[in-house]
Amino acid sequence: MRIEGPRYTERFGAVRIDEVQKVLELDSGRAGELSPYESVAVQKIEEDVIKDFEEKMLIVIPTKDEKLKLLEGVISGIPHECQILVVSNSQRKRVDRFKMEEGTLNQYCHFTQRQAYLIHQKDPVLAKALSESGYKYILDKDGLVRDGKAEGMIAAIFIAMMMKKDYIGFIDADNFSPGAVWEYVKCYASGFYMAGSPYAMIRIIWRYKPKIGEGVYFRKWGRVSEVTNRCMNSLVSVRTGFETDIIKTSNAGEHAMSLKLAELISYASRFAVEPQELVSIFEGFGGVLPMACKSAAKYGVEILQIETRNPHIHEDRGTEHLRDMLLPGLATIYHSKLCEKETKEKVMSELVQQGAIGPDEEPPKPQICPPPKNIDIQKFTKAMEGYMETRSALRSRGK
Amino acid sequence: MRIEGPRYTERFGAVRIDEVQKVLELDSGRAGELSPYESVAVQKIEEDVIKDFEEKMLIVIPTKDEKLKLLEGVISGIPHECQILVVSNSQRKRVDRFKMEEGTLNQYCHFTQRQAYLIHQKDPVLAKALSESGYKYILDKDGLVRDGKAEGMIAAIFIAMMMKKDYIGFIDADNFSPGAVWEYVKCYASGFYMAGSPYAMIRIIWRYKPKIGEGVYFRKWGRVSEVTNRCMNSLVSVRTGFETDIIKTSNAGEHAMSLKLAELISYASRFAVEPQELVSIFEGFGGVLPMACKSAAKYGVEILQIETRNPHIHEDRGTEHLRDMLLPGLATIYHSKLCEKETKEKVMSELVQQGAIGPDEEPPKPQICPPPKNIDIQKFTKAMEGYMETRSALRSRGK
Repeated sequence: MRIEGPRYTERFGAVRIDEVQKVLELDSGRAGELSPYESVAVQKIEEDVIKDFEEKMLIVIPTKDEKLKLLEGVISGIPHECQILVVSNSQRKRVDRFKMEEGTLNQYCHFTQRQAYLIHQKDPVLAKALSESGYKYILDKDGLVRDGKAEGMIAAIFIAMMMKKDYIGFIDADNFSPGAVWEYVKCYASGFYMAGSPYAMIRIIWRYKPKIGEGVYFRKWGRVSEVTNRCMNSLVSVRTGFETDIIKTSNAGEHAMSLKLAELISYASRFAVEPQELVSIFEGFGGVLPMACKSAAKYGVEILQIETRNPHIHEDRGTEHLRDMLLPGLATIYHSKLCEKETKEKVMSELVQQGAIGPDEEPPKPQICPPPKNIDIQKFTKAMEGYMETRSALRSRGK
Repeated sequence: MRIEGPRYTERFGAVRIDEVQKVLELDSGRAGELSPYESVAVQKIEEDVIKDFEEKMLIVIPTKDEKLKLLEGVISGIPHECQILVVSNSQRKRVDRFKMEEGTLNQYCHFTQRQAYLIHQKDPVLAKALSESGYKYILDKDGLVRDGKAEGMIAAIFIAMMMKKDYIGFIDADNFSPGAVWEYVKCYASGFYMAGSPYAMIRIIWRYKPKIGEGVYFRKWGRVSEVTNRCMNSLVSVRTGFETDIIKTSNAGEHAMSLKLAELISYASRFAVEPQELVSIFEGFGGVLPMACKSAAKYGVEILQIETRNPHIHEDRGTEHLRDMLLPGLATIYHSKLCEKETKEKVMSELVQQGAIGPDEEPPKPQICPPPKNIDIQKFTKAMEGYMETRSALRSRGK
């Protein structure tokens, strides 16, 4: 893979935010040195290096009643070296969609001889393990994991910790293009290789997101992303004193983290989860509030933003309203301890303009789940002992 | 890459047509042996093996006034080891689209340090070289290469022969997804590796071709493909005496050939070029007519059909009418020396039903360009000597 080197880095305390780096070539061919003048602008990441990182990575696919053919397609795009975990919140009553997912996955994994795990978000064993580890923040009053993509992602972080993985990457199940999925993982691996810190996050920005109406219009920015990015940049700008537009991935659903970093940050629900990750990093390592972790502060936390070659073509459900998506993300910025008057006003003006709240209202406080760092992973592991094997797509065939 | 092994092969004289093989996994990970029971059904083709074939392959991108961003995207998906040749028939008057393509390509190749050639279909040097080699069949009365994708493809075969490549693969410039392009090339390389003959052709069939209207419908078969395949299968069935539906790629625009085979077959114009390749192979090696080449007959000619993981998402120009596309393809079947009464009637009935011709008409005879095997490649090379270098995207930057 050939990627632009980062040409500029914005610093905010111990946080380094790299400018967007474009993928230049999906497949850069055999291993070989770059010429010295080429390496000024371009990084060539060898396939072997990428595979080293893939081996240490858990790829998590949160899914809910997704078309099985799309789910299978997404899995077929994930490089073989990565461990796969599907966290499903699909219905089990009437039509047992979860059972169908299991069948699809088992058949696929049997033919390709690859390992993948499938677990239901409402699995009682998982809930019990979370509870015993001391992390009850994502549990419902009935004792099971709450609905919501964010809750599934957090549970997956625990499983990655248990598996002793170094990296965790998320990919949505509704992607039409296995080739794009393949590229996301290559970007994750390349990003971790390029990062100058073991506390790193890779966020994907797509080149275009074809908008299909009459003909095709290649959108780059969704309206929600545009507004969220503007407010997020304001949060940083006001604190550093230098205006910046460096953040272009506030809502990046496709992103990956080193587990070291994932343990240190807090998570919000639904559409707020991705912006909250950034807010949490800025709070913990921006140098305005006390540092969240001394060792991480020493290395620094690095955020890489990588622009893919493939366009993002996914299921358009038409149910996501601008307002519903905008409000939770902006609320995480508004309620951050870093957020001062100027940014608060900016957020309010955007929300009022969109009719998301009235002029005298405040955005509702997001529900924040604290960092997983203090949990007892031994207890979690013990409670899950032997259980993941029964959730393996390779093992459970024919049962 | 992990691909299904061919489970069935139809034989027609010296021609072997393999059943469709599905791609199972885009990236099968590090090199390693398959378990013996897995290798019964599945082939794992190692990245290193694929690269060996890529090095010997010329990838040809025929283009005409295509969006530059799509063209650049297609190029970014082609593995680095492949030589690239863009054959452009874009306009040069008013707006010089060709010059714009040159600029785009030069900039891209400069940054990725990769080699690519761009030549205009109406280039007088190319026309002169073709003429001197003795191959005037694609020249217009003004002495330049005729318009048409097929004519550009044939010219590219000559250039591949001159470059002493072993394989030539074609990819359309209007593909939205660089990841799909990447997969096509991997399929070509894997196909040549799997083929049991140096006279081989790889034809791509896509898993789905999303049809975008209200919502998305994942079409597998276009109407034109369906009808053309049915008639093509009839051509074979009647001769072998066993009915078959093995041919599923009569109209495959994405296909590749060994140069050894490319030199032996004849070519038709426009939408007829892809079906005519098959007709020509059946005529030359089906055993009904005299064998076109003894050595090829000894090895056999092998046709592989590979189903990709990525859907085919491309520009929908809305100008290609069913009738206009159907007629030329079916005409190649109708006018084949192999075509007997039963298949002729089938072709007629389809064409009349579509209103493509009247009930008393015959489909027009396709214009067939003979196999390139008899040309004088030395003369072609001499006439092009030093010229291709000036068409190189890496060399001509800044000129």
